Amino acid sequence: MITSEDTRFMDIALAEARQAYSEGEVPIGAVIVCNGQVIAKGHNQVESLTDITAHAEMLTITSASNFLNAKILSRCTIYVTIEPCAMCATAIGNAQIGRLVYGASEEKYGYRRWAPEVLHKSCKVVQGIRADEAKQLMVSFFKERRK
Amino acid sequence: MITSEDTRFMDIALAEARQAYSEGEVPIGAVIVCNGQVIAKGHNQVESLTDITAHAEMLTITSASNFLNAKILSRCTIYVTIEPCAMCATAIGNAQIGRLVYGASEEKYGYRRWAPEVLHKSCKVVQGIRADEAKQLMVSFFKERRK
Repeated sequence: MITSEDTRFMDIALAEARQAYSEGEVPIGAVIVCNGQVIAKGHNQVESLTDITAHAEMLTITSASNFLNAKILSRCTIYVTIEPCAMCATAIGNAQIGRLVYGASEEKYGYRRWAPEVLHKSCKVVQGIRADEAKQLMVSFFKERRK
Repeated sequence: MITSEDTRFMDIALAEARQAYSEGEVPIGAVIVCNGQVIAKGHNQVESLTDITAHAEMLTITSASNFLNAKILSRCTIYVTIEPCAMCATAIGNAQIGRLVYGASEEKYGYRRWAPEVLHKSCKVVQGIRADEAKQLMVSFFKERRK
């Protein structure tokens, strides 16, 4: 089920994605919400940190765990503008995040292609919120890069 | 092909795993080697950092990228005492690490079960070096925990 809150939180993730874009990073943003409150947000920082592990989701999970002083985030929802890759989806699974909401599907690198079973068995998945905006950011970014 | 160097580097990874054990962490260690030189080593720090992303391989990839100032580690070999999980294997794939050497297989959480195709297509995989020692550490650790 999609709520108006989902759209509001995804808009915050999208703002993070735009921030990534402006920094020359692949424009993906993530937000983690617990009890209706944003407890972590972040965007891809692979280029600025020179580190392929620095995906938006990974940074946000680390940040949320720090905030809650808990490694298990089962009462949290993670919002991501683009379908997570297998690395991030496994992290979302290991953290037992209770709900994953993502915008646009990622046919090439998304977890559903490479590791479809890694989320926690009780994780609820919602896709498609603000998908067009999320995808458009990615398309523009890579189009600009090819110039 | 297994070389005497492989055994030597795996022994360093095993020393990291023992260090993890002594800190109350799941005893897994990792080492990254480039041009015959150890450029990064580390062990699981999930408990001490309260962060499920802090697997030995992830910390070591971040450290190696920092050392080389490069996000692509194609000329590196990563040694891990236990078969990586899907998160770490995807990170190893994203970093395009050229060679993965691991000790004991991990039937339950290993990447071959959850995400068998995530390594880079040119990555060479060697398994079984010091497997008994690596596995014994894990068995002892979890046996002690169940007491």
